[in-house]
Amino acid sequence: MKEIDILVSEVGPRDGLQSIDAVVPTAVKNAWIRAQADAGFREIEVGSFVPPKVLPQMADTGVVVREATGIPDLSVAVLVPNLKGAENAIAAGADKISIPFSVSETHSLKNVRRSHEQMFEEVQRIAELVDAMDDKPHFEAGLSTAFGCTIEGPVSEDLVVRSAERLMECGVAEVGLSDTTGYANPEQVKRLVRKVQAAVGKESITGVHLHNTRGLGLANALAAIEEGITTIDSSLGGIGGCPFAPGASGNIVTEDLVFMLQAMGLETGVDIEKLLAVRNILRDALPDEPLYGFIPDAGLPKGFQE
Amino acid sequence: MKEIDILVSEVGPRDGLQSIDAVVPTAVKNAWIRAQADAGFREIEVGSFVPPKVLPQMADTGVVVREATGIPDLSVAVLVPNLKGAENAIAAGADKISIPFSVSETHSLKNVRRSHEQMFEEVQRIAELVDAMDDKPHFEAGLSTAFGCTIEGPVSEDLVVRSAERLMECGVAEVGLSDTTGYANPEQVKRLVRKVQAAVGKESITGVHLHNTRGLGLANALAAIEEGITTIDSSLGGIGGCPFAPGASGNIVTEDLVFMLQAMGLETGVDIEKLLAVRNILRDALPDEPLYGFIPDAGLPKGFQE
Repeated sequence: MKEIDILVSEVGPRDGLQSIDAVVPTAVKNAWIRAQADAGFREIEVGSFVPPKVLPQMADTGVVVREATGIPDLSVAVLVPNLKGAENAIAAGADKISIPFSVSETHSLKNVRRSHEQMFEEVQRIAELVDAMDDKPHFEAGLSTAFGCTIEGPVSEDLVVRSAERLMECGVAEVGLSDTTGYANPEQVKRLVRKVQAAVGKESITGVHLHNTRGLGLANALAAIEEGITTIDSSLGGIGGCPFAPGASGNIVTEDLVFMLQAMGLETGVDIEKLLAVRNILRDALPDEPLYGFIPDAGLPKGFQE
Repeated sequence: MKEIDILVSEVGPRDGLQSIDAVVPTAVKNAWIRAQADAGFREIEVGSFVPPKVLPQMADTGVVVREATGIPDLSVAVLVPNLKGAENAIAAGADKISIPFSVSETHSLKNVRRSHEQMFEEVQRIAELVDAMDDKPHFEAGLSTAFGCTIEGPVSEDLVVRSAERLMECGVAEVGLSDTTGYANPEQVKRLVRKVQAAVGKESITGVHLHNTRGLGLANALAAIEEGITTIDSSLGGIGGCPFAPGASGNIVTEDLVFMLQAMGLETGVDIEKLLAVRNILRDALPDEPLYGFIPDAGLPKGFQE
């Protein structure tokens, strides 16, 4: 397999589909994930283990995970809100388990109805569960609302750093920074990445989850990469965002991110032409949903060498 | 006046309006320019001196320039394709005169029907005209298609550098880099800025004109700023692009650029709320034109401090 410089982690089947009312059939999810893996993706967040009454779009996540684990060289990632979700993720065989931890406690209470202390306890229980396994999935905590909260406004950077340290103490393998609300700017991304790196070590923060709500998604991704971040989340057609953060919408568009990185000479392992074809699966499945992205419309530059 | 870190040069009245078929009345242009200067803009490209039969939208540029020069603390910039245009610009009292020089000779022949040698001669004649004046306007050459050409494909970076050197020898005060086709990526922006800086000196390349055709406009602007560029062109609502480069469209959106810079703590002198209000002038004048931008829809982050 080709060595890659940057891992583009596709989150569309989770972050995208959970914010769309329509329930996409399991077979379509499977076809999407398989096609995107075939286009060269090494990690796809395929779903989340949340109660079906909260997010019926994610009710088949167990089945989707089992199917995806059969794809060679693919890290199958899922999101879990709690211990119960983590147990289901482990039972299904997920390779990577992420739990969101809202640095804004107001957002945490609203999103998962848990205080910070309750979240730390939950994370520790999951870490203990993972630790007891022979073939351990990668367990990560995402520091959501790290760049600001639509309810609280600015979020303390010290609190982000302290939360990162505490989550590492609770036993996660890694923390990530999430711009849940699309508030981040490149300077803030750089500063916060450096602060968290200094606190927990560079090896314990390799990824960021950025939104494009205010058009700064790719500029923020560039800033993160310049500070040594090597995993960037994005979603096909830019679908999704956080359904519980009012006003937030718009992930980084995978197609545009891959173009930027490959154009910069950073290997992602992705075949852009194949990636653009995957978009058709999404368009056919969700004909009424707007799909975003510049590259799909503008095309690749003349003479572009991947 | 406030010290600024980055000069956002508004090019909408020129680059935007020249690519829209409708002819905007002079009074509307004047109102737009005045309102945007009032929002804190220090430089606005108000029009181009091209034959009215080629671009009837720009036929009133002389009148617009004369009106705009009455606005305090505003640098009134214009684009000229040739000596005749420069004479008109000088007669009208423009503060800054830019001439585009297409590094892709094919594009040059198609755009202004002149070879490189013919362009160098034209530039030299204008420089001599400017030199003979007491109160000299700032005369700049923009290296268009510097990042690639929709006709030729990749453009030689050595040719960009040699063209920059030659234009300086012809007597321009400064050169700029233009991503006419929206092909640029952040790595290329950095590399090319550094190369041209090394060739002509940092003081002789302070600005870039970037497009957002492939969604990388703000990331490219960030890259340019990181290399010491201090003037970034953009257009209100993202209107415009080069009408002679097939497939090219979409300037950087002024509203989003100003937000990014101010959020990063870079002073632009612009009042964002006032800037967002200027958009109404454009919407009223061009009800059928799509206006772009994320900030106008998403709004400023909660608790955002300019």
